[in-house]
Amino acid sequence: MGSSLTYISSGCIKTPDGELPLRLKSILEGLNEVIAEHHPDQVAIEQVFVNINPKSTLMLGQARGAAICAAVLKDLTVAEYTALQVKQAVVGNGHAKKEQVQEMVKRLLKLDGSPSEDAADALACAICHAHGGQGLGGISTAGYRMKRGRLV
Amino acid sequence: MGSSLTYISSGCIKTPDGELPLRLKSILEGLNEVIAEHHPDQVAIEQVFVNINPKSTLMLGQARGAAICAAVLKDLTVAEYTALQVKQAVVGNGHAKKEQVQEMVKRLLKLDGSPSEDAADALACAICHAHGGQGLGGISTAGYRMKRGRLV
Repeated sequence: MGSSLTYISSGCIKTPDGELPLRLKSILEGLNEVIAEHHPDQVAIEQVFVNINPKSTLMLGQARGAAICAAVLKDLTVAEYTALQVKQAVVGNGHAKKEQVQEMVKRLLKLDGSPSEDAADALACAICHAHGGQGLGGISTAGYRMKRGRLV
Repeated sequence: MGSSLTYISSGCIKTPDGELPLRLKSILEGLNEVIAEHHPDQVAIEQVFVNINPKSTLMLGQARGAAICAAVLKDLTVAEYTALQVKQAVVGNGHAKKEQVQEMVKRLLKLDGSPSEDAADALACAICHAHGGQGLGGISTAGYRMKRGRLV
């Protein structure tokens, strides 16, 4: 991780309709392909606190578990950052709007176009990690606001 | 799966204290060992609806995601059953108490001693599956009561 950032690739894995095990398998296999193609040596993932409803939270947890499994199966270290940390690192303001994050990701990575919202979130998380963010450890949620399940 | 049940093994995987990725990895590796040792061709897992608090639900989802990943990585089919279905299959009463489940597991598998509570739950889920329970699909929670995060 030098002082300049180079964009290599980004994307989203869409899981098929159907039963949970097959959907989790598609996340595993999708990330396996990305890892095999780009040989990352580190992984950063957004830490989320979802509180929409228990079913959605459970589903997100399962998907997140599968994503982290794909990384640890290849012995990659996984760092976690809250949306607050990511926004602080990318925009300089933990309460920045989504559009500001997208715009800064585009500028920092010198992209011609805007990445999709989800891809921008993932790139922002990677930038946060590249900028030297530390692993999350035990984060206190005291004093943060929740909005649509995220710390803001 | 014939008409008689034979007990082979049961147990619990305890994850180490520490960061989430390492804890999920210990679930993956623990189940990999069990699969390598006993060569199951099917997996049954309890479907849970946890509503204690979002953080616990997210954590459970992540652990559950890792467990399912261990199975699908070996191309094992995974069936899901609610506690209601498991109790119905094992005790004949979807609202049976935990002690009744433990007692019936002990009897059905002709065990000398009582398995631990968590192991008994897992064995009951396996018995439910062996008795021909079907995969969960889209379960309706309407009409069921929730108790400590489980359908009862």
